[in-house]
Amino acid sequence: MKSLIQIFLVSALLTTCINVNAMTASPQSWWVGMQTNSLQIMLHKQNVAKHQWQLMPYSGVNLHNIIKTDNPNYAFLNLEISPSAKPGTLVFNSAAGGRFEYSLNARKANSSKRRGFDSSDTLYLINPDRFANGDSTNDSVKGMLEAANPIERGGRHGGDIQGVIDALPYLQKLGVTQLWLTPPLENNMPSYSYHGYAITDFYKIDPRMGSNALYRELAAKAKQHGIGLVMDLVLNHFGSEHVWMKDKPTADWINFNGDFANGKHATSHARQTIQDPHASDFDKRQFSDGWFVATMPDLNQRQPLLANYLIQNAIWWIEYADLSGIRVDTYSYSDKAFLANWTKAIMTEYPQFNIVGEEWTSNPAIASYWQAGKVNNDGYTSSLPSVMDFSLQESLIQALNEDESWNTGWVKVYQSIANDFLYPNPDNLLVFADNHDMSRVYTQLKQDLAKTKMAMTMLLTTRGIAQMYYGTEVLLDNTGSNDHGDIRIDFPGGFKGQKSNAFTGQGLTIDQRDMLQTISTLLNFRKQSAALSQGKLTHFSPKDGVYSYARTSEKQTVLVFLNKHAEMKSWPLHYMEEVLGSQIHATELFTQQTVNLNKAVTLPAMSAVVLVIE
Amino acid sequence: MKSLIQIFLVSALLTTCINVNAMTASPQSWWVGMQTNSLQIMLHKQNVAKHQWQLMPYSGVNLHNIIKTDNPNYAFLNLEISPSAKPGTLVFNSAAGGRFEYSLNARKANSSKRRGFDSSDTLYLINPDRFANGDSTNDSVKGMLEAANPIERGGRHGGDIQGVIDALPYLQKLGVTQLWLTPPLENNMPSYSYHGYAITDFYKIDPRMGSNALYRELAAKAKQHGIGLVMDLVLNHFGSEHVWMKDKPTADWINFNGDFANGKHATSHARQTIQDPHASDFDKRQFSDGWFVATMPDLNQRQPLLANYLIQNAIWWIEYADLSGIRVDTYSYSDKAFLANWTKAIMTEYPQFNIVGEEWTSNPAIASYWQAGKVNNDGYTSSLPSVMDFSLQESLIQALNEDESWNTGWVKVYQSIANDFLYPNPDNLLVFADNHDMSRVYTQLKQDLAKTKMAMTMLLTTRGIAQMYYGTEVLLDNTGSNDHGDIRIDFPGGFKGQKSNAFTGQGLTIDQRDMLQTISTLLNFRKQSAALSQGKLTHFSPKDGVYSYARTSEKQTVLVFLNKHAEMKSWPLHYMEEVLGSQIHATELFTQQTVNLNKAVTLPAMSAVVLVIE
Repeated sequence: MKSLIQIFLVSALLTTCINVNAMTASPQSWWVGMQTNSLQIMLHKQNVAKHQWQLMPYSGVNLHNIIKTDNPNYAFLNLEISPSAKPGTLVFNSAAGGRFEYSLNARKANSSKRRGFDSSDTLYLINPDRFANGDSTNDSVKGMLEAANPIERGGRHGGDIQGVIDALPYLQKLGVTQLWLTPPLENNMPSYSYHGYAITDFYKIDPRMGSNALYRELAAKAKQHGIGLVMDLVLNHFGSEHVWMKDKPTADWINFNGDFANGKHATSHARQTIQDPHASDFDKRQFSDGWFVATMPDLNQRQPLLANYLIQNAIWWIEYADLSGIRVDTYSYSDKAFLANWTKAIMTEYPQFNIVGEEWTSNPAIASYWQAGKVNNDGYTSSLPSVMDFSLQESLIQALNEDESWNTGWVKVYQSIANDFLYPNPDNLLVFADNHDMSRVYTQLKQDLAKTKMAMTMLLTTRGIAQMYYGTEVLLDNTGSNDHGDIRIDFPGGFKGQKSNAFTGQGLTIDQRDMLQTISTLLNFRKQSAALSQGKLTHFSPKDGVYSYARTSEKQTVLVFLNKHAEMKSWPLHYMEEVLGSQIHATELFTQQTVNLNKAVTLPAMSAVVLVIE
Repeated sequence: MKSLIQIFLVSALLTTCINVNAMTASPQSWWVGMQTNSLQIMLHKQNVAKHQWQLMPYSGVNLHNIIKTDNPNYAFLNLEISPSAKPGTLVFNSAAGGRFEYSLNARKANSSKRRGFDSSDTLYLINPDRFANGDSTNDSVKGMLEAANPIERGGRHGGDIQGVIDALPYLQKLGVTQLWLTPPLENNMPSYSYHGYAITDFYKIDPRMGSNALYRELAAKAKQHGIGLVMDLVLNHFGSEHVWMKDKPTADWINFNGDFANGKHATSHARQTIQDPHASDFDKRQFSDGWFVATMPDLNQRQPLLANYLIQNAIWWIEYADLSGIRVDTYSYSDKAFLANWTKAIMTEYPQFNIVGEEWTSNPAIASYWQAGKVNNDGYTSSLPSVMDFSLQESLIQALNEDESWNTGWVKVYQSIANDFLYPNPDNLLVFADNHDMSRVYTQLKQDLAKTKMAMTMLLTTRGIAQMYYGTEVLLDNTGSNDHGDIRIDFPGGFKGQKSNAFTGQGLTIDQRDMLQTISTLLNFRKQSAALSQGKLTHFSPKDGVYSYARTSEKQTVLVFLNKHAEMKSWPLHYMEEVLGSQIHATELFTQQTVNLNKAVTLPAMSAVVLVIE
């Protein structure tokens, strides 16, 4: 697969008589020895396309051609980098006397063989502005449009990458194995920029979060704690303060001609138009090309130069920061042919990598469309390894909040998981009880500790890759408010002046300590359990308020019983004969008591029982 | 495809020295010139298997072998009937002096080419016991365990096949093109037998309904009125008073060894176990082999002799009664390998026939599994042409009862139909607002006439085969009771002593007349509309309480607007550009007014507007 590329050139590398200080090149550097031997560098500067750029002789590297667009301020340099090329510095000259240097670096050993996060992992989702303020000197940064305002729900609170680095020992002890940070890239917007999804520079960590180098340091230090780093990328849209809004690389760079039209060009969110055989062309366009909001213009990924830009940007961050995965925001809203190419390009470069797409639908027939290996009616082929299991999230909350009946309660979870036949790889689904865009699980479960423990036990023991939202372990709560700022509440211990501290345990309530212990037990067990990592799931039709299942690997079987009933139950296991094997004894995970499998098992009221058979 | 067969021999044909009066042969007759050249006749009589039956020489017919089982009271005669065989009477003798005759009949011309019901049709669903009593002499019949009791909800009310025959002119005028009667076969049960699903003789019309001959007469007379006849067959279970319960043909004829075990062997209804990759063997068996109720034992279709019996039974009724379709009760509860064979056998015999399976689930990923042409993950291949669209039924009622929002109201219908990508043939879905197993549409819509008219307008103009339940046209209603007896209420005009008469119009309320007129207009338009019969559906994302769509055929376009808003709307059509073509004028179906398509269309509050462009 040939992929082409674009760049922002760091101004430090520019040394010539045209106004190079204002020139950017994207990507800002590259590597030798990549699978793909082509690179497309986007140059941006006034009238840059009018200069005739030439590459000084460099063994194994060739400037194939230069693409110019309808805007003379952009030029796209197509390079070919042969497998024999060595690391070094490329030098480009223009006939008009311009000159810039460009780094070709050596890759880390085995970079292409890196393993992405998988079903043995637990991803810990962090809003870095709200997790921990490790460097108070960058809370407000000169030149950034929005300054810190910690008392404002939608303001910047000062959390940063240093705060996450400082928390690594805590996270390791908790049992986390992957970190997913909401986008740390520059969001130089005048207001409401803390969330990170209005990106104004795709190649630069926001200075209020840290720097590119610090982000790379986070990845390296996390790895020392056995923790991988997952980057949150946005392909669908960008921040309206991005230079592209003032100076479009091409006329068709932004959908609906760069015009939100007071909401007339807002997305319909009607993702079903992607597969619906009866969908109108009108609705298909409105979904795919419509904007999220006025401040997030919608990118036209059908434009091949933009497509290359986004492909190279992802590969650049994987290689630069040594990532173990990518999470893609608002996945299906981008052009679907582009998404096929983008995922294929990354997975070709890193065959064992993982990428999870956010497709917010409780309809698994729609979500599964995007997973690699799915045979779709329309012939669409995706290379996206993982999608999020919103169906299970919704079902789990309903199951715990509803009374049991033939069609309410646990049966919803049972039915949701039964739909796994729609997925080519259910083990590569991301399972979660909440995230940064919905009420916290403890809130959704009406501040019921027992239910919250059951929910998390289920998520951390069923099939799939587990994800938990920061602070779930200490029952963070947004009861009474659906405001995103209250969902993304400051983590206790991460900021000055807080009453409690989850890192030290100081000031936590009994319930918080209980939850922390439960999560820690589950995560640390999950880390080393073959049954939970790769074991086959066999589940049983819920009965009398109990949902039960087994995870079986060669040497370990884990049985899980989730008892929603208000009373203790004595639970015979005869119906589980097919998964029990010949073992007579098991150990209960939370109590460490030995249980005789030939007798009925005691299931305390409103609780999870996890039996480990080895 | 070779199919084998079984029979009840009519006693009139039996003339020998063994107690032939008590012997039955199934099927009771057969035909020459069938696609399948094999026939398996089941003989039932005490020790019948101990006699060595021989076929007297008959050109083109050969008694291949006789299968005996663990029960000497049954013998299965495998015949081969070559394409050259002529109609006539087969004579069988046994070494012990037994003798019986068996008719091989000539087929109707083009019988194998019969067309099944399709998307041009409207099926009218009748509970014959509750529709019209055309013959009061058969209300109670000697030898039948249950007598008439018209004042009892769950009792037999006396409706019969003669009542349906008498109503044919009414049904033709209404615009009905197919009749689906709930099973008219013998249900000789001590109580609650009127519904017909506890069959005690698979080859005999219940004498309280009429006779085999009268059923055949109904089919013939209906055809003269342009109406086809669809038979409701039950493959999963039968009535506990059937002789098979007292004298099983084989030990494995009935699931769970013929023992309901006080409900321990009741079906779980967990149809998701069919495809669920995580389903336990325990649950799979509980679903498929479990009984509906104690009085409806579950048939083991894995038993090949029973499988043949059920295949031949269906073909016998199609050929005997000249059917235009079959509806299969509780479809997925039968063995799935058997269902594949059963549908394939019928569709091989009648390639243009139609069969609709009842798979009661609102999950189209589950319902679509059964439709012919579906490429399933597990490789399962079905020949069932049609399934019922329970998802649309549920969505339609919700849509009309809910307020509009981004995820409530019409969007549910839009999303339900968008799931058509899951079906290989959405045009062959049966669409309906209610049936005999759920509250009537007028009840579900809280006795709201306007909503009921919108619901029926949608169902009769969207894709699929339309089905309506008897009496919807006069707003039959079960408000205040979910009892099946109240849902299956006596049709006005069909029974003595009723206050109103839908057949004559006498005593109908203004609302009933309004509904009758609406239904009649829609059905009769549907009968001759190419756009509604075969036209492509293009639907539009609901907006401001309006769901709209187009049906387009080569020469006709039908636009439908369903306005749930409480106020009249002036509705511009610019978004429909792709379906409007060059025509400027349309005719509104209900008002017959001419509408200018270049202007905004007036949509009255809470109503359907149907524009016909030709």
